[in-house]
Amino acid sequence: MKVFHKINPLKDVLNHHRSNSLKIGLVPTMGALHKGHASLINRSMNETDVTVCSLFVNPIQFNNTRDLDTYPRTLEKDIHFLEKLGCHILFNPSVQEMYPYPPVVEFGFGEMEKSMEGAFREGHFSGVALVVAKLFNLVKPHKAYFGQKDLQQFVIVEKMVKDMNIDLELVCAPIIREESGLAVSSRNQRLSEAQKALAANLYKALQLGQQLLAENHDISSVKREVSNFLSQWQDICPEYFEIVNTCTLKTVDYMEDGKEVALCIAAYIGSVRLIDNIIFKK
Amino acid sequence: MKVFHKINPLKDVLNHHRSNSLKIGLVPTMGALHKGHASLINRSMNETDVTVCSLFVNPIQFNNTRDLDTYPRTLEKDIHFLEKLGCHILFNPSVQEMYPYPPVVEFGFGEMEKSMEGAFREGHFSGVALVVAKLFNLVKPHKAYFGQKDLQQFVIVEKMVKDMNIDLELVCAPIIREESGLAVSSRNQRLSEAQKALAANLYKALQLGQQLLAENHDISSVKREVSNFLSQWQDICPEYFEIVNTCTLKTVDYMEDGKEVALCIAAYIGSVRLIDNIIFKK
Repeated sequence: MKVFHKINPLKDVLNHHRSNSLKIGLVPTMGALHKGHASLINRSMNETDVTVCSLFVNPIQFNNTRDLDTYPRTLEKDIHFLEKLGCHILFNPSVQEMYPYPPVVEFGFGEMEKSMEGAFREGHFSGVALVVAKLFNLVKPHKAYFGQKDLQQFVIVEKMVKDMNIDLELVCAPIIREESGLAVSSRNQRLSEAQKALAANLYKALQLGQQLLAENHDISSVKREVSNFLSQWQDICPEYFEIVNTCTLKTVDYMEDGKEVALCIAAYIGSVRLIDNIIFKK
Repeated sequence: MKVFHKINPLKDVLNHHRSNSLKIGLVPTMGALHKGHASLINRSMNETDVTVCSLFVNPIQFNNTRDLDTYPRTLEKDIHFLEKLGCHILFNPSVQEMYPYPPVVEFGFGEMEKSMEGAFREGHFSGVALVVAKLFNLVKPHKAYFGQKDLQQFVIVEKMVKDMNIDLELVCAPIIREESGLAVSSRNQRLSEAQKALAANLYKALQLGQQLLAENHDISSVKREVSNFLSQWQDICPEYFEIVNTCTLKTVDYMEDGKEVALCIAAYIGSVRLIDNIIFKK
């Protein structure tokens, strides 16, 4: 695997591949890689000729310094992990390389970022959009792979790509879970075993919500039941539980046949903030 | 000249040129072409292999419906004009082709859009940035040509290109003027001959400002003198006269040796809004 810390040599190599008509796949990550990332890398390896994994903890998408400071950083392990998967290129730039001067451009996504992550993490999606736009322009991938776990991020990036006519195909890959149901996440590294067991209840809460929707309970009673279910554990601090339209991300007031919704949750387990979701169609 | 109204056939032709290692130049316009545009087209013809002129009156950059409705549209004449210049490709999409659904993405440029055009035309630069980003992604030019007349636009687009690592070279071409000094503009078509003569005083006002700066008058007295100068004509209604840093677009309070500033003016002549500027370094 070739490792690049600088933009220009990366671009030279990718231009060369592109001029040989090779298809490029991009998997943007913030490192601390796990089997969720592996599923994206494997998919890119199957569907393209050259897989680029970017590993960059993007400071401008963190509204909370503590979250940024404690975000797991495991570069040596990540390199080993990517080599075992057969990934072709790792792009691991410094903050200075990505932001040689403070950026001015800000992105807004209207209603789409008013709920959920956007509501609780101010400026988050502007920071995500900028780093994703930069990576798209640097790597110029034919396909880019994102995980469904960050569903709001995926829907917003998809909207950005369409609105801006960015010339690539986006792939949203399914959430990978532990046997307990816990969605795999880099942040899980910060959980004790007991906390991991507790955190598995977030998925159980989503499953409960899905079951109630399937049984035609109305949205407000589903929300109440899910909230009641989670209130059993005082060490789970829910931040939100929302049922949203998967295209617009708007909160859904009632279910419509054939309309896809996402049940989305965010909660703290100790100081670790976790998110998860299920997509459901009646 | 090949004329495209649709995105896909344009992309096919440009992909073909690109795979033959031809350099592509883009001149984005809103039509009603004049010798200012001709200077951009000619420059692109000299510096690249394939010149694409886009002609699209971008509705989302107009905050004022009347301005949008009255914006001159002279397609037949424009096609003839471009053919005479030898332009290779005209891209003239419909609003439906560019915005098949309402866009969600908005752009912000912080302090850079707080003054001048940004202050008087709300949402203007978000609309400009989106259409420029779209055109860049559709045409993927090696070089893109803008006029210095829209200086704030150029500086903001330049910042967007840098912040987002957009892979192209921007060219800012000098303002083309009538013999009277009046900056050529599509909007001049809406002026009578008498109004054109009157409008030439905007450039005289900028020249006066420049001369006073060269003579070490302070900024506030320069502004006062320019304002007094223009107050001679009751049919000139100035909107702003600013002296700004050409990099940050921030208003300059005092001149520094070696620092480049721009003297920028906007004014109404009747119902027609005109802008002009001079770049000056002491």
